[in-house]
Amino acid sequence: MDKPVTLRDVGLRDGLQSIARTVPTAQKLEWLRALHGAGLREIEVGSFVPARLLPQLADTAELVAAAKSLPGLTASVLVPNLKGAQAALDSGAALMLLPLSASHAHSLANLRKTPDEAVAEVGRIRALRDAAGSRCLIEVGFSTAFGCTIQGRVDPAEVLRLLAAVLDAGADRVGLADTVGYADPLQVSRLFERSFAVAGDRLSCGHFHDTRGLGLANVYAAWQAGIRRFDACSGGIGGCPHAPGASGNVATEDVAYLFASMGVATGLDFDALMALRRQVGQWLEGEPLHGSIWRAGLPRTLKELA
Amino acid sequence: MDKPVTLRDVGLRDGLQSIARTVPTAQKLEWLRALHGAGLREIEVGSFVPARLLPQLADTAELVAAAKSLPGLTASVLVPNLKGAQAALDSGAALMLLPLSASHAHSLANLRKTPDEAVAEVGRIRALRDAAGSRCLIEVGFSTAFGCTIQGRVDPAEVLRLLAAVLDAGADRVGLADTVGYADPLQVSRLFERSFAVAGDRLSCGHFHDTRGLGLANVYAAWQAGIRRFDACSGGIGGCPHAPGASGNVATEDVAYLFASMGVATGLDFDALMALRRQVGQWLEGEPLHGSIWRAGLPRTLKELA
Repeated sequence: MDKPVTLRDVGLRDGLQSIARTVPTAQKLEWLRALHGAGLREIEVGSFVPARLLPQLADTAELVAAAKSLPGLTASVLVPNLKGAQAALDSGAALMLLPLSASHAHSLANLRKTPDEAVAEVGRIRALRDAAGSRCLIEVGFSTAFGCTIQGRVDPAEVLRLLAAVLDAGADRVGLADTVGYADPLQVSRLFERSFAVAGDRLSCGHFHDTRGLGLANVYAAWQAGIRRFDACSGGIGGCPHAPGASGNVATEDVAYLFASMGVATGLDFDALMALRRQVGQWLEGEPLHGSIWRAGLPRTLKELA
Repeated sequence: MDKPVTLRDVGLRDGLQSIARTVPTAQKLEWLRALHGAGLREIEVGSFVPARLLPQLADTAELVAAAKSLPGLTASVLVPNLKGAQAALDSGAALMLLPLSASHAHSLANLRKTPDEAVAEVGRIRALRDAAGSRCLIEVGFSTAFGCTIQGRVDPAEVLRLLAAVLDAGADRVGLADTVGYADPLQVSRLFERSFAVAGDRLSCGHFHDTRGLGLANVYAAWQAGIRRFDACSGGIGGCPHAPGASGNVATEDVAYLFASMGVATGLDFDALMALRRQVGQWLEGEPLHGSIWRAGLPRTLKELA
């Protein structure tokens, strides 16, 4: 319980991916440095997808290069396939995040592969990484692990089967994601517990959206189950196209507050996170920000602790 | 875990108390009937405080009378002192909620009594109730149990001491309230566990505000500790004067969604709660509503379960 918690800010990828505008590279670099300055030591900086699909992430290699100059920072990049993995290896990113959808229907719609084809691709990416002599970590993020807007219910047994399969295929780490904001804390508790039994300490990330208000309750439930690393976005950006107007990823500053209030170290500077949130609001003027703690600020009791 | 959860909607008292305007009695009666129609079987309908202090609650006796005509409904009223208790007994309310502030500073500022003086008043109210031969339940709600905007930290040992004292003084039930939105789920978990050791099943209510985004996480933590009865407000009204613009009480529809998603019965009709929320928004036009689930609606997986 006393173990510190690591937050990975995923705004520069998961957040910006869902926003049509392209943020200039210079602003992204400032954003990246501000995240690092606020204490973030894991940041997802972009995605190696074709620029025609996501032009707003076309500068990912530049972001990785900048991230490598920041002390102690682990830069993650999203990688959808073998070609993207090669680009990630070329960039020198410290971690590749490979999406795998536990929902068969979502996998076909989003990745144009069945989940088992995605598992096979993990194996090929592992072979590529090893052949290159790279130490880039391979993390598989299970999207729709708690339900799917297309398919509805996702069988936990299928999530567990696929977890075992990607670990066999060579993933270094796995994480569970509630991409669409369907999870409840009891479900989170149960699926993480069962997943730990399959993956042990290679289960190392919880990714939650606050679409229906349960984001922080789900973070808490995953923490209770043993997870000590979470994705979040400064300003709570990264909304779901299926729920326009609803909240996006859990806000970095909210998750930081949750753990600070419980006395769990995150290494994050709350004032710097609040300043970054305001800055993100300016860079993304017109886009809705989300999250809660910014309205009321820290409680008096926490100020006394700090 | 399979035990159903009871929600008490406190909007007609806790919600309206923090809003300057006076809602006409006819609208309150419609509100009351709509809550009952949505499945609520506990409703806090008002407060027996002097009308000069809270003119917006001056029609409490009428509300109690109307509530008594609704099948299966337990009507609560807030009672600040012996005089209010007499009015509550006269009205025929089923439950008196007596506030007791665990924070010495808040108690003096808000109730003009020390916590121990408030305990003594509980004893006098118990004697009054018994002398009247009434079966009106006496519930003591511990405000600022998790921290106080004036005093800062509130010692859990002081909460436990006061819990034992009010039970000795004759309270039938006690509940813990995070009036100012300072609580975190770990603190909730610990204080409810320790309080159960003192109060047993007479500890029967959790009252949370979502001021800093942790309202639902705290409801979940209290539920894990064994609480099966929660206060909430339709539309999340009832903000804190110390945090203008921040969220108020946890929203009834959000808490209903939390438990529905976990498969825990509440007896509530989600569509009726959403319709009431819209109606409350019209009655209170210009006042901010809060809460989350109204934006995105129920997940597809829950629709399949329903």
